[in-house]
Amino acid sequence: MQNVATEFDTIAAISTPSGEGGISIIRISGENAIEVASQLYKGKNLDKVASHTINYGHIIDPDTEQEVDEVMVSVMRAPNTYTREDVVEINCHGGIVATNRILQLILGGSARLAKPGEFTERAFLNGRIDLSQAEAVMDLIRAKTDQSMKVALDQLDGNLSTLIANLRQDILDVLAQVEVNIDYPEYDDVETVTSRLLREKAVEVKGQVQMLLATAKQGKVLRDGLATAIVGHPNVGKSSILNHLLHEDKAIVTDVAGTTRDVIEEYVNVQGVPLKLVDTAGIHDTDDKVEKIGVERSKKAISTADLVVLVLDSSVPLREEDRQLLKLTEGSKRIVVLNKTDLPTKIDLNELHNVVKNDELINSSAIEPLGTKALEERIAKMFFAGNIENNSNNIMVTNARHIGLLKQASDALDSVLEGLDNDIPVDLVQIDMTRAWELLGEITGDSYQDELLDQLFSQFCLGK
Amino acid sequence: MQNVATEFDTIAAISTPSGEGGISIIRISGENAIEVASQLYKGKNLDKVASHTINYGHIIDPDTEQEVDEVMVSVMRAPNTYTREDVVEINCHGGIVATNRILQLILGGSARLAKPGEFTERAFLNGRIDLSQAEAVMDLIRAKTDQSMKVALDQLDGNLSTLIANLRQDILDVLAQVEVNIDYPEYDDVETVTSRLLREKAVEVKGQVQMLLATAKQGKVLRDGLATAIVGHPNVGKSSILNHLLHEDKAIVTDVAGTTRDVIEEYVNVQGVPLKLVDTAGIHDTDDKVEKIGVERSKKAISTADLVVLVLDSSVPLREEDRQLLKLTEGSKRIVVLNKTDLPTKIDLNELHNVVKNDELINSSAIEPLGTKALEERIAKMFFAGNIENNSNNIMVTNARHIGLLKQASDALDSVLEGLDNDIPVDLVQIDMTRAWELLGEITGDSYQDELLDQLFSQFCLGK
Repeated sequence: MQNVATEFDTIAAISTPSGEGGISIIRISGENAIEVASQLYKGKNLDKVASHTINYGHIIDPDTEQEVDEVMVSVMRAPNTYTREDVVEINCHGGIVATNRILQLILGGSARLAKPGEFTERAFLNGRIDLSQAEAVMDLIRAKTDQSMKVALDQLDGNLSTLIANLRQDILDVLAQVEVNIDYPEYDDVETVTSRLLREKAVEVKGQVQMLLATAKQGKVLRDGLATAIVGHPNVGKSSILNHLLHEDKAIVTDVAGTTRDVIEEYVNVQGVPLKLVDTAGIHDTDDKVEKIGVERSKKAISTADLVVLVLDSSVPLREEDRQLLKLTEGSKRIVVLNKTDLPTKIDLNELHNVVKNDELINSSAIEPLGTKALEERIAKMFFAGNIENNSNNIMVTNARHIGLLKQASDALDSVLEGLDNDIPVDLVQIDMTRAWELLGEITGDSYQDELLDQLFSQFCLGK
Repeated sequence: MQNVATEFDTIAAISTPSGEGGISIIRISGENAIEVASQLYKGKNLDKVASHTINYGHIIDPDTEQEVDEVMVSVMRAPNTYTREDVVEINCHGGIVATNRILQLILGGSARLAKPGEFTERAFLNGRIDLSQAEAVMDLIRAKTDQSMKVALDQLDGNLSTLIANLRQDILDVLAQVEVNIDYPEYDDVETVTSRLLREKAVEVKGQVQMLLATAKQGKVLRDGLATAIVGHPNVGKSSILNHLLHEDKAIVTDVAGTTRDVIEEYVNVQGVPLKLVDTAGIHDTDDKVEKIGVERSKKAISTADLVVLVLDSSVPLREEDRQLLKLTEGSKRIVVLNKTDLPTKIDLNELHNVVKNDELINSSAIEPLGTKALEERIAKMFFAGNIENNSNNIMVTNARHIGLLKQASDALDSVLEGLDNDIPVDLVQIDMTRAWELLGEITGDSYQDELLDQLFSQFCLGK
């Protein structure tokens, strides 16, 4: 990994979320960062201020000499910065127009607009962080619950990187040993010894890779949220249950950038599990007006969900629609909630128990303060089974790219073992072992390709 | 105005807009700001770092000793800060969960959650800015165009404050002179001289107040946006025209805080005039499907709009619906757009000219690059008439509270003049003159009341 910043051009972007807020920040990074800022700044001489200081002043339009905003300018000189380059952050009153105006003025100087993720990409290219740490930055930003944040932070701290680096070192050691054995055979049984070495290491590394892959499913849920559909006949209390879940921890509503205002995702944090709600429109409508599309609409929601919460009203007999929904959700991971248990039970429990497994069934009374506690506990239990806290090294694979690479590495290690079983010559087996080493390296970016980088960092938010 | 910070408790809030971004900031202000931050911070000793420095480190949960985020902590000691108190800003990776987690930890220490606008309120209470400057901070944040930003910034710089302070000083001078004249009459005609003095000053100050009030209408449009309805039969090209307007400068979409996702306001910046679009749902739908509610829906939009843009298709004869819309908008400030002028004209121009004034009519061809230029120019002309740039001192009253106070001050000055006309004794006329002085003082907060402050700052965004 390089330790000196590569020479890049100077980039700038607004680094705070778009909207009205108390503060907005425009970040500039690169060789000319201080110069670019100085040309617009009235206040102290930024060339002369100490590094890592905050300076009060004004941004002035150099053409009209008109004042644009009152600002605080942070000057941070390389290498102790986010990107390892000179970084200037202009901290202004948080309006949309003023912030954009300042950015435009900066882009009028010798800086260009940063691509999404480009600041973090530079931190990577300049060797401050590796690829899995860079990815963790974005996961941290997108984290939906404390638990997902913790996983991202561990990865940012380099825990996954260290584990991967150790595995690669182990492979490298054995490859070196194999090389020595082949080139300088001291014993007659060199072939046997070498095979044994390779086998031992392949089994060991594969075990570790499998251990990581075992965390992947939970990890992905923590990272992306568990797509959850809450379905049921109108008036069974879907929205009351939703409100209950929201009560503990307000829904995290992520407004996807752009003008398509329809693409809003809602998340509920249920004991650390982020539920990504599917078709909430249906839920919000339900108690207000008669739902015309009922089962049809639910079908779609059910098909795209990882978890279906089917709500039934225990105070009335099963309806035809309930039976249809029970049938529809048979193949899904589901929780069947018997709501309104505060009222006399009229639902046919025998019929229900014929089609619903015991551990799928939950009682709930959305009018009571803790009425949905059982549901929350069931959801948490289904997806953690208590093993997050017990995970000794706390490393969890959350990223689809990492999961893919680990699977490929596991396959390569299988080929190693298979080769040894079939007495394939060691120098051919070596190729698969080397491939495993390379694949693991791609996780941390130690054998990265340009297109991969471009694609990966483009998923970041602007200004990071 | 006080120059020393009053003693307040320590407050904290997230100061960046909510959402996923590269950076989030939690701001802490008050006597214990540095202590509160130190308890959570692993890095340099914040008590000992120089003021206005940025320090790298980690936020640690003091209970579990677990790391929460990698941060940069800015330490700014009183009095050179936003609030004139000790201020610490924790600059963290911009995720929703991590940022909230840090805030919760801070609130677990000896800080409480800041009310909306409370940082700015402290800047005011500690004498760094006056009330009209505090209001300008919020206007700056909410500014929809460059022009509205400029007006807010002038106000923040204290231009309005200075003008008001001068007017008040003038009144105070004449009141003092009157007092002297009454107490120590050196001449026989003291009554006459005093009356003349009062009259002169009342006329002069009223002139200035009227000058300010004359800017109010434009000012309010710049601040709040011009409520604009784009109406017309389906397929006349409403959404093409909207897209054209958006092309120059993307719509500023303000997502009002909270969960009510329906309350989204869309703004278009037309040559510096912020148009606040009324009923854009109607526009977006139009070209996709047949609009069932047509005229009924338009009626509502027209009634709430400051400006109606009625779009007609010049390539077809007038429809009954067009006639209804022309009739409906008769009383509104409107622009009638003849769209599709690239096609042969089939609309009856004679009939049109009978019901539409010449200067209300605009040709447009939304398929051409500059096809809506005439419309944009007309809108800008209607609302600026070129006099913003010509406004000598650039001061513009934008705030409804200021407008109300200026009107009352003008009334008080009228009473002064009326009293003098009717030979009311000077010591009674003085009362109205003093009232004018007080009313002007309320603009800058020099005679503020607690409830006013509470109400005023509660309109701010959180963290400012």
